Order: sequence, then C-alpha cells, then structure tokens
Amino acid sequence: MPDRNRRVLLARRPAGIPQPDDFAIDAVPVPEPGPGEVLVRNLYLSVDPAQRGWASAEANYSQPVPLGSPMRALAVGVAVRSNSPEVAEGEFLYGWFGWQDYAAVPVSAIFRRCAEAVPLSAHAGLLGLNGLTAHLGLTALGRPRPGDTVLVSTAAGAVGSLVGQIARNLGCRAVGLTGDDAKVARCREAYGYAAAWNYRTDDWAASLAREAPEGVNVYFDNVGGPILDAALRRMAVGGRVVQCGTASVASWAEVPTGPRVEREILTRRLVWSGFVVLDHKDRFEEAIAALAGWYGQGRLVLDEDVSEGIEAAPGAIAALYRGENRGKRLIFVG
Amino acid sequence: MPDRNRRVLLARRPAGIPQPDDFAIDAVPVPEPGPGEVLVRNLYLSVDPAQRGWASAEANYSQPVPLGSPMRALAVGVAVRSNSPEVAEGEFLYGWFGWQDYAAVPVSAIFRRCAEAVPLSAHAGLLGLNGLTAHLGLTALGRPRPGDTVLVSTAAGAVGSLVGQIARNLGCRAVGLTGDDAKVARCREAYGYAAAWNYRTDDWAASLAREAPEGVNVYFDNVGGPILDAALRRMAVGGRVVQCGTASVASWAEVPTGPRVEREILTRRLVWSGFVVLDHKDRFEEAIAALAGWYGQGRLVLDEDVSEGIEAAPGAIAALYRGENRGKRLIFVG
Repeated sequence: MPDRNRRVLLARRPAGIPQPDDFAIDAVPVPEPGPGEVLVRNLYLSVDPAQRGWASAEANYSQPVPLGSPMRALAVGVAVRSNSPEVAEGEFLYGWFGWQDYAAVPVSAIFRRCAEAVPLSAHAGLLGLNGLTAHLGLTALGRPRPGDTVLVSTAAGAVGSLVGQIARNLGCRAVGLTGDDAKVARCREAYGYAAAWNYRTDDWAASLAREAPEGVNVYFDNVGGPILDAALRRMAVGGRVVQCGTASVASWAEVPTGPRVEREILTRRLVWSGFVVLDHKDRFEEAIAALAGWYGQGRLVLDEDVSEGIEAAPGAIAALYRGENRGKRLIFVG
Repeated sequence: MPDRNRRVLLARRPAGIPQPDDFAIDAVPVPEPGPGEVLVRNLYLSVDPAQRGWASAEANYSQPVPLGSPMRALAVGVAVRSNSPEVAEGEFLYGWFGWQDYAAVPVSAIFRRCAEAVPLSAHAGLLGLNGLTAHLGLTALGRPRPGDTVLVSTAAGAVGSLVGQIARNLGCRAVGLTGDDAKVARCREAYGYAAAWNYRTDDWAASLAREAPEGVNVYFDNVGGPILDAALRRMAVGGRVVQCGTASVASWAEVPTGPRVEREILTRRLVWSGFVVLDHKDRFEEAIAALAGWYGQGRLVLDEDVSEGIEAAPGAIAALYRGENRGKRLIFVG
C-alpha cells in the first residue's frame, strides 16, 4: 500500500469542461481518521460527466468543489482503519472518497456497502450512480410502457448503455444516438438497441422517423443542444422527455439560444422533467435489486473502460466529453 | 327568431392571428336538422384563443377549419327542433355550434347540457372549456399544494382569471401578469391575486423575485415567449410549468429562437407539461362540480365581456390577442 496519499486537486476554476491543466497532483501523508471516521484506501476512481458541474462556480445543484482540495468523485475502496462501530476494517465501500489514494471520511460519505455479487468495479457504475440514474431516470420520470419506443442520447455511455438495456428488459424498443461507428455497432450488438445512429455522420432524424413513425414515447437525454431540438420534434403525443444531462452544451456562461419549444410541448402534450438522481433516494434499493437481478440473469452487459494510475485522472473528464470512453470510465489506483 | 342563418365563414387561411378580413359573413336559409340531429338556435358565441389554431393550416392538435365553412366555435344555444330522443326542444346546450345563428348538429356536437344554477352565459366560460382548462390544467398538471406560489400569465383573461381564483381557493398564493394597469387592478381587487404586474411596463421579474424569494412552484403559462423565458428562471426546485397556450408568439411558420432551457429544467428539476383540455374528459364533471360549488358560495368572480351582434365576430379573435377583452369574451346573437 502506498505510504503517501496522492491527490488530484482542483487547481483553478474550469471555463466549461475541466481540462488537465485545471488540476494538480500532490502527495501528502496518509491522513489519520478522526473520531467516528473511516480511512478508505481507494481502488476504483469514478469519472463522471457530473464532475463538470461540481468543479464549476456556476449555480448548480451541488456546492462547487473548493479550489485546492481533492476533486470530488465517487470511488470504490476498502476500509483499512475504522473508528466507527458501523464499519468493519476490510469492508468494501462505495462513496464520496475523491480523486486520491486515501480518504479519511465520516460514515456519511459512504454511499453504499459493496455487498452484491458483481465485480467490485461494478459498484462504481452498474450499481452506482450511473445505474441508479439510468434505472430511476427511465422508470420514475420516463414511465415506459411495454412496446414504447425509447430514444437515448449518449447511448453507449455509462448511463446510456444501461438505459437502452433496461428499456429492452422492460419490453420497450430502444433506439440510440452515439458519436462514432464503433459505438453504434456496440449499441446494436451488445446493448440491445433495435437501431442506433452516429449523430455526427448519419441523417439520424430521418432514420428515426422511418424507424419510429409513430414518434418517440420516451426520450432520455444526456446531451441537450441540437440533438434535443430535433428529438423534441419526433416525440409522440404524450411523450416523456427526461433531462438527465446537457453534455453537448459547452458553456452556459452566456445562455445559448435554440428554437423555441413551448409549441412542441403544448401540441404534443409532452412531459419534460429534470432528473437528478439524489432526489430519488427512496427508490435506490429497489433499483439496485432490479439491476443486480438482471445482471445475475445475464440480461445486462457491463462495459468498463479502466485506466491504471492516478495520473490518468486530470484528463479524464475532458476525454469523457470528447466521447473517447468505451463504457464506464474508471481509474484503478489499487 | 331570425328567418335566415347568418354565418361567419373562414374565407382564407390566416397568416398567424386571424384578422377581420380572414372572415366573410353570409346569410343562408335556416338548416333542416337531419335524422337524429338537433337544430340549435345560438345565443352566446364564444371567442377563444384556441380558434387561432383551429383556423391555421399548421399541424396542430385538431383538424383545421375548412375554408368557406362556418368558423369553428363553442356556443350556448337552445334546441328549437330535435330529431333526437336524447334532446328535448327548449333545452339549453353548450357545444360545437360554430359562429352562426343556427346549427343543425348531431348529438355528438353537444358538449354539455346547461343545467347548473349559473347565468346562461357562464356555461360558455366558467363551466365551459375555459373553466375546465383553468381547473384541470392547474390541478392535474400543476399539482398545487397549499402555500405554493402560483404564477399565471394572461392573469385577467377568461382562463387566467379563473386559475388565480382557483389557486387561491386551494390555499395557494397567486401572482399574475397581465397587459394593462386596469387589468392589474382587477387581478388584485377581484381575482384574489396577492400581486399582479403589467408585463409591458413593470420590471416584473425583479418584483416577482422579491414577492416569491423561494421561487415559483407552479407557472400556468398561456403566452410562451420572453415571459416564459423569464418565468422559467424564477421557478423553485421541483416546480411545475403548465403550457396551456403560446399566445405571445405571433407565428410559428419559422420557429423563433430563445434562450435554451434544458439546464433550467435539469437543475431546477422542473416538470413542464403540455395541457390540452380535451385530453382530460374523465375529470370534466369533477371540475365542473368544483367550479359550480365555488360560484354558488361566492368564491369565484365571473367577468364577462359581451358584444351584441354577429358582426362583432370577425374581429374578435384579433382583439383577444391584443388583450382588449375584459374577462370572458362572448358575442350575444339571441
């Protein structure tokens, strides 16, 4: 085990998407857990689009990460010392442990214990915030019915690849948008999408109109921007739009413009909802049971894209926004 | 009773808001009701913002009115002949009788019988589509809770004036936007709004921020456009936006642009829904019972703006969009 704690600090406030230079890596003594605290040795650091918002100073749904402190991140680790009667040494934990080797944290920083029969890394994705986001965004806000057409943007991403598979497991027809041909193939061959398109090169709106002539019943949107504009105009009457992210919009510092939407909402009687997973804690265990069950039955493919070494962290968010990951992006630091 | 049937025909397809020249008035023999049909003598013709959509050739949620036929309209009338066992001569009826003196219609054109103890004209507004729209848009999609702040655009209109009063009757705090100072006063003095502003002259967004520092819980929007843009940015987390109309947008032939909204929806976790009253037929009688009950208890003020003579019809829609009406706009042709 390392005898120093390497940390990825937020060195300056990013303009838009965090870039490698926005971070600095240092090494400090391994922290001492205080009374009631647990010392976690991180194993898998999670890389998530939401980190862009956490690093930003713009008003958001969480407090910004203070400059000079370790980048906020979820991680899977093991308790190497515990001053809490609630945590045993040797327990595997998933929680707010940050981009660093070690975290001395109160029990409230622990999101879940890693108890289910899945690979350890899957606790950071499939059974972590990504899986919860996919399952609860789709079911609680999207309210899919069997036979519905469910459109997913970032269809091959950590969340989107699960949305497509969950939709199919619920008896829906999933169609997806992603940013390169290899991901298109993966969507069709592994994630159960009935159709998938490369939004950069395909005339996907025309293809979607042919593939779903009755319109889209549920649109699970991670990107916003022009893809959203086009998708809104392909919704069926009574369709549901789940706004889970706005990854395609580089900056909100000056609010960009787009075609007005109120007439689409009115005439198509859409229900367009904003989804933030932490609003839905009361349904987390239900979602995890469903996800773990499907995984155990071989009904969920789990793709992970794992780098080794904490040096990979500073560039990882920007790479995610460039669409370079293949499945759930993790950094192994064990 | 007139011995001819005067009719307001749609003479050409309007460009945007229907203007007087888009209509022509003719006079034809009083029609004969066919088998199963009812001959209705109209008394009150309704003027509604939705007629703009009915007259338009743009894709919409109803079929466009054919050129050369009487303008589609709701009206209150009396059955003067009946070939249907379901309707007695002398019954007062509210239905799709068009802008004309007489209508020979099948029973399916009757929306409701006028049975409640309210003024006859009120069946075309308070207990008609306006009241149903106000009540069901607010309750079914807006889901107000006691203590909520409910913002209403066109706050003094046929729908808006009822939304404000219903919100107050449900224990909410209503605040409203309207287009002139006389209407602002009427909102405050008669319709129970805690605050109301003239959107043309007041810095209403700043006033709203002071009046509702915690944000707006329900926005009942009849206008779209820049008022909607500003209101979205004053919503509370978890707020509901009811899109009931887009009256401020002059034309959708080229879709106008506006500031993008997806980040507001996401970070504020809004639920933005499109409301078309005819989707909610299963709750019409419940809504009418509530409205008639409040009216009987003196808890709903009913303002009507009644012109005499069918010649008032061709200019009435445009006048409505100019905001010239004081309350529910009707044309008496009895």
